[in-house]
Amino acid sequence: MDASDASEETLRGVLAEKQASVDAQAGVVRLLKAEAAAKADIEAAVESLKALKIEVSAVAKRLQAVVSSSGGGSGDREAFRQAVVNTLERRLFYIPSFKIYRGVAGLYDYGPPGCAVKSNVLSLWRQHFVLEENMLEVDCPCVTPEIVLKASGHVDKFTDLMVKDEKTGSCYRADHLLKDFCKEKLEKDSTLPSVKVAELKHILAVLDDLSAEELGAKLKEYGITAPDTKNPLSDPYPFNLMFQTSIGPSGLSPGYMRPETAQGIFVNFKDLYYYNGYRLPFAAAQIGQAFRNEISPRQGLLRVREFTLAEIEHFVDPEDKSHPKFVDVADLEFLMFPRELQLSGESAKLIDLGEAVRKGTINNETLGYFIGRVYLFLTHLGIDKERLRFRQHLPNEMAHYAADCWDAEIECSYGWIECVGIADRSAYDLRAHTDKSGVSLVAHETYPEPREVEKLVITPSKKELGLAFKGNQKMVVEALEVLNQAEALEIKAALESKGEIEFEVCTLGKSVIIKKSMVSISMEKKKEHQRVFTPSVIEPSFGIGRIIYCLFEHSFYTRPSKSDDEQLNVFRFPPLVAPIKCTVFPLIKSQQFDEVAKIIARSLRSAGISHIIDITGTSIGKRYARTDEIGVPFAITVDSTSSVTIRERDSKEQIRVSIDEVASVVKEVADGQSTWADIMWRFPTHSASHVDD
Amino acid sequence: MDASDASEETLRGVLAEKQASVDAQAGVVRLLKAEAAAKADIEAAVESLKALKIEVSAVAKRLQAVVSSSGGGSGDREAFRQAVVNTLERRLFYIPSFKIYRGVAGLYDYGPPGCAVKSNVLSLWRQHFVLEENMLEVDCPCVTPEIVLKASGHVDKFTDLMVKDEKTGSCYRADHLLKDFCKEKLEKDSTLPSVKVAELKHILAVLDDLSAEELGAKLKEYGITAPDTKNPLSDPYPFNLMFQTSIGPSGLSPGYMRPETAQGIFVNFKDLYYYNGYRLPFAAAQIGQAFRNEISPRQGLLRVREFTLAEIEHFVDPEDKSHPKFVDVADLEFLMFPRELQLSGESAKLIDLGEAVRKGTINNETLGYFIGRVYLFLTHLGIDKERLRFRQHLPNEMAHYAADCWDAEIECSYGWIECVGIADRSAYDLRAHTDKSGVSLVAHETYPEPREVEKLVITPSKKELGLAFKGNQKMVVEALEVLNQAEALEIKAALESKGEIEFEVCTLGKSVIIKKSMVSISMEKKKEHQRVFTPSVIEPSFGIGRIIYCLFEHSFYTRPSKSDDEQLNVFRFPPLVAPIKCTVFPLIKSQQFDEVAKIIARSLRSAGISHIIDITGTSIGKRYARTDEIGVPFAITVDSTSSVTIRERDSKEQIRVSIDEVASVVKEVADGQSTWADIMWRFPTHSASHVDD
Repeated sequence: MDASDASEETLRGVLAEKQASVDAQAGVVRLLKAEAAAKADIEAAVESLKALKIEVSAVAKRLQAVVSSSGGGSGDREAFRQAVVNTLERRLFYIPSFKIYRGVAGLYDYGPPGCAVKSNVLSLWRQHFVLEENMLEVDCPCVTPEIVLKASGHVDKFTDLMVKDEKTGSCYRADHLLKDFCKEKLEKDSTLPSVKVAELKHILAVLDDLSAEELGAKLKEYGITAPDTKNPLSDPYPFNLMFQTSIGPSGLSPGYMRPETAQGIFVNFKDLYYYNGYRLPFAAAQIGQAFRNEISPRQGLLRVREFTLAEIEHFVDPEDKSHPKFVDVADLEFLMFPRELQLSGESAKLIDLGEAVRKGTINNETLGYFIGRVYLFLTHLGIDKERLRFRQHLPNEMAHYAADCWDAEIECSYGWIECVGIADRSAYDLRAHTDKSGVSLVAHETYPEPREVEKLVITPSKKELGLAFKGNQKMVVEALEVLNQAEALEIKAALESKGEIEFEVCTLGKSVIIKKSMVSISMEKKKEHQRVFTPSVIEPSFGIGRIIYCLFEHSFYTRPSKSDDEQLNVFRFPPLVAPIKCTVFPLIKSQQFDEVAKIIARSLRSAGISHIIDITGTSIGKRYARTDEIGVPFAITVDSTSSVTIRERDSKEQIRVSIDEVASVVKEVADGQSTWADIMWRFPTHSASHVDD
Repeated sequence: MDASDASEETLRGVLAEKQASVDAQAGVVRLLKAEAAAKADIEAAVESLKALKIEVSAVAKRLQAVVSSSGGGSGDREAFRQAVVNTLERRLFYIPSFKIYRGVAGLYDYGPPGCAVKSNVLSLWRQHFVLEENMLEVDCPCVTPEIVLKASGHVDKFTDLMVKDEKTGSCYRADHLLKDFCKEKLEKDSTLPSVKVAELKHILAVLDDLSAEELGAKLKEYGITAPDTKNPLSDPYPFNLMFQTSIGPSGLSPGYMRPETAQGIFVNFKDLYYYNGYRLPFAAAQIGQAFRNEISPRQGLLRVREFTLAEIEHFVDPEDKSHPKFVDVADLEFLMFPRELQLSGESAKLIDLGEAVRKGTINNETLGYFIGRVYLFLTHLGIDKERLRFRQHLPNEMAHYAADCWDAEIECSYGWIECVGIADRSAYDLRAHTDKSGVSLVAHETYPEPREVEKLVITPSKKELGLAFKGNQKMVVEALEVLNQAEALEIKAALESKGEIEFEVCTLGKSVIIKKSMVSISMEKKKEHQRVFTPSVIEPSFGIGRIIYCLFEHSFYTRPSKSDDEQLNVFRFPPLVAPIKCTVFPLIKSQQFDEVAKIIARSLRSAGISHIIDITGTSIGKRYARTDEIGVPFAITVDSTSSVTIRERDSKEQIRVSIDEVASVVKEVADGQSTWADIMWRFPTHSASHVDD
């Protein structure tokens, strides 16, 4: 329970008291009227009642404000988001896809500046992860045959629960309807009794865990109907979120558009392990499109039907998850939100990464190393570290096979958004594909010397067991064979001392008596030359579109224009991310200046620096504003034929640089080799600077 | 008819003569035997017959060789391809997708080196086209609603003709079966009469133009059956090549995986035109996945079901297709294969690009400019200019709306392969989307001064026409309204002189008599402030996977190992394309050298140079060979603690460079700022060089 929750509780208490006073006072008024009391008395009582009602309404308003801000929908947030989104759409960072055909929900295009930002983010990702860690990058198709996604579990389990409007057939996500109902009740109905408040809050907390039956029961209980028509709804049923298609002309080979890129890596494990010289650990990476046929996409760029994923699968020996480069990130300190803090109702805290791994908060060094690298990547892009936290999955969120799982969550106007998942998935995926394909996806460790190992050998006597248990023999045999070493040795000891033991067979749902003659248990010595094992996989998975949207929000600010009559929009993208690195403006319309601008443009082009020339006669301030709005960090103003002015976007500082040097100076700051501050030292600042409008 | 064809004809002639001699001599032998002639005579005649048969078989062999080499399938080519493909698969340049599940025809993964080559090719493409030409890059989804592809014509026309095995249901491309039949006949059946040869060659030439009925008739005529089972085949019918899916949960919104990226740009024309300040010309570009559900994919990486396209749509005023930068490419000279040369049976010729545009061989400057830029791009990548030609589409290959169309074709072991299409598509696409969406995708040219224009005004008198033609009135009115200026003025003159005219109405299939009272035709003067028009679009479209495959073939060669007992494989990728720029090898196993290697690796990493360290104790020659095989251009051998050896892959030349300088030197050649020859001048060559195995 966080601070805003506490004050919400208090307010609800106050509200309940005030409401009780109102009810009491209303009773008084009714009584006075019934008794035909003196007019003055009645009027006085009515005045008190009015005063009390005003108090109630004031408290209700405060309560509503608190509730909606903690729910992520305050008016300020909405207004901020609207300002960002307006700028993004007006400047074509993105465009609803197929707009002239009225679009398709959940599909967006990146327009020119958005596309450049995306391409820069992906380049940085490749540099930061693939190149620096020598990862094996692969590029697999989106079209995927059914068998692969059957093995991964997507065909059976990649579903959301859906309800249909029973008259129109419109489809809704069942959990969304219930969530909206609960939130609306909590926000709008200030007279809700506290037991009801607790109930609704509980539903919101466990929403993801509800079964189809439980969801259906709640929808019925609350009388929830189709939002658009108020028609009754069907029972919830699972809808598979994969786009289905058919491969080849026969119609007999079902396929899907991949819901993630990871499977393409898993099925190539054998080849990649060979490529890496049969050495572990190694990581493979993939950037590509993924697809989810959302039932009803909402939240703009955050929940879409097609998106770019960047995924890493790091294969590691399950018995040694240390990481040689962990020391490089161990001293980082950032916001973490481990399971314990979430369960005890506390907030995320600054925690030292080295300590988190030492204490076992984070399961192992490799997982910790990737968490650290993800932190560095995101903050390097320009994500505000105050609005970035690493949240550990609660046990109910995690797949049964996962060893540990953390999400990098970024706070934006929609609340805390999961943008990167970093999971230790143990051996699950490789085992699943081994089982389905019959191809063994394992690693080998050859011992320098053969090792003598003691191995548990359990040999059930089928004859004796058959005589004793008849039809149940198979279940008993199986139960004996899967005993672990400790259990087996315990049974062995008991059999040797007592001759028999009571033994529970889960598949029979009862215990049986095992006698000494029925099973032989021993430890035998064997020589082993190698260890064969299924590697664990640690998977950082990046939702590139979500990261970019959060980056847009974190980079956006407004500042007054010179004339102060309007707010100007700015994106403070770091130079590496900025869609265009610099602009070239001739100060005034002049053939000489235009020539200089062209020379500079040519040198920028051969230095590989993206730029635009603006030779419109517009005032220099207007031209600055126009490019601040798409986040161009540097503007070159041509105001003489020998040297020019470079202006930095956020500080508006200006320096003078000779024409010969300008491209290399811009390249230096744009590539991140120097900061603007470094550059400021080296060149004269511009005294008679070109001011913003 | 080219040289090999000519000698094929000659050979067929010789073969027919020899065969006739054989037949005659066989007659002689039969006769001698029938007459019970002397044994010696018979034996002599049989010997002659044998000799003649040997001659026939020799000529038949030569003929077969000629036929199969002109058909692109000679033994040498096959062997070369097999060597390339073996190396590519063994070194994981690519991998058949989902291999552990026995794969899916037409789907391939790029493994680590292939993925790096692809990413380098795309970076160069972005630099060469998007950045240097200030194109507007966009990024649209693959999932596309039906209406968009209905407008573009893909839903109705993006089909191949298919036949089914009538018993098993297996599907085949009808034209492939006919093509295989014709080729096999021509190659294997050396006794084919020349009229039959001509017939089969004609079919191969017009294969793409055959209708379903014509194809079906030919399949029947030649008795072609299912290749695998010899079962009878169905009639050919069209199969749509798009992967179909359904958008959203209702099942009511059909969608497709886009077959090309271009439509995403066309539907955004209005926004992009605005983004460009309402100025023409401008180009938009897109890189992304496209999908074609091929009936039966063949030719490895050349015909696949999912592939990366890079497309440019350059929007231009149809009345002015000049290009300001055409001068930059006008002096290029390269292999062109204009329509005339193809029709007259000649080969591609070296032609000067400027001249080709001046003479009208290439329709306009903008088209010519892009042809030149494509030539520069491909040769820059490492495509051999001797095996690159620009072939103009023949009238029957071109869509009716296209003004002109050229393919960049690259020769590889499969023959000449279309890798880039460069088409002037006129206003077709924007008009199609204007019609379907109702949103006007047009450009405006505002005149500096309003212009007085004469406009043709045709006003049919519906009353008079109705009286005269009753039910046919509508067709006559429409036919009058679509008259062009010349026709209309001719009719006006005739009506004025003769009072009536015979007028053909196509939709009625007959002529009618039009009288003066039935229509008024005049030229009227109007003031116009702007011109509104649909821009033409010039579209260069790059099949990235095909370019990369051809690049693999053009870059591959073998050379003997030092011991000469085996051939070593090398890819001579230019440094910009090479998957990894350099390797670092400690000469011998030594802690000191390993330390130096690590220092160098660190400096390479911070210079952004992809590299691998190989500290295995293998001989230096083996390590060179291993990395030559994936095309690494530079190897750094650590053989001292102060300076190291850099070896260039193709020349095997070695220079000595100090450890401090090595990263910057490699960066210089890897980024293409300097050539190896430049570098060779500046550093001492290595006297005691590390020899290859």
